[in-house]
Amino acid sequence: MFHTAVKVIIVTEKFLQERVCSLIESGGGKGYTLVSAGGKGLHHLHSTDDKASVIEGFGNIKIEVIVRDRSKAEAIAETVMQNVFREYPGIIYLENVEIWREERF
Amino acid sequence: MFHTAVKVIIVTEKFLQERVCSLIESGGGKGYTLVSAGGKGLHHLHSTDDKASVIEGFGNIKIEVIVRDRSKAEAIAETVMQNVFREYPGIIYLENVEIWREERF
Amino acid sequence: MFHTAVKVIIVTEKFLQERVCSLIESGGGKGYTLVSAGGKGLHHLHSTDDKASVIEGFGNIKIEVIVRDRSKAEAIAETVMQNVFREYPGIIYLENVEIWREERF
Repeated sequence: MFHTAVKVIIVTEKFLQERVCSLIESGGGKGYTLVSAGGKGLHHLHSTDDKASVIEGFGNIKIEVIVRDRSKAEAIAETVMQNVFREYPGIIYLENVEIWREERF
Repeated sequence: MFHTAVKVIIVTEKFLQERVCSLIESGGGKGYTLVSAGGKGLHHLHSTDDKASVIEGFGNIKIEVIVRDRSKAEAIAETVMQNVFREYPGIIYLENVEIWREERF
Repeated sequence: MFHTAVKVIIVTEKFLQERVCSLIESGGGKGYTLVSAGGKGLHHLHSTDDKASVIEGFGNIKIEVIVRDRSKAEAIAETVMQNVFREYPGIIYLENVEIWREERF
């Protein structure tokens, strides 16, 4: 009943949300989930302050998109990396998941 | 020290939260985590507007429950699918995780 | 292009955030992501009320840190377990992920 799929997770600054989501849609992602986030760190964002602990100030966004094919996941990650993260901070990583109703992904 | 377990992730509309959580508890889930979310897309939710980018309007909820047995995870997913997602929009997927203090799951 | 890595996920009460993040940094984590969360359950938090469904009252925090080495992930989990979760409620689990730009993790 479940089918293997790949989740692409992108964490970046909130003002880049529309740009990233637009690249996801161009890359064939059929939907995405958004979660407001904070964070800190070298690998993460060029945080210029230490106020990540002030939850009200969460200025990051976590974007998750699930696709059925590994190659599509990698292509989306590559596009975001080339078009956004050469200029702006953020991280991208992949996770293996199992989905139901695979025709929707 | 770590033991394999399965995380069931459900993303749906906020007003369905209590219904889904109640099915999780009936299915033997001993706890769950809730995160406010937004999103867009065919596989995702019947979003009738494009305002997912308005973070203040996040109307979805991401519910995560970890259980030790794969069969219990599948049973919870099946129950939510049959009892909620035939009528309402949402997605369900599984991830393999490793837990500590397995007696709590 | 992608490299295997391990994500440590910690869900606990918000007032413990700085303590946990400080242990992550001492343990060699180069960054982390924070998400505001709610939840309920035995394995989860000693929830003394049933108001987890009141989204405005979210009093938990989900902290995610990705590290390249499994041994570092386990050491961070062990430290948080010993220094925080003997006294306070919370859960810790691991997930395998794949990262890009591995020099940042």
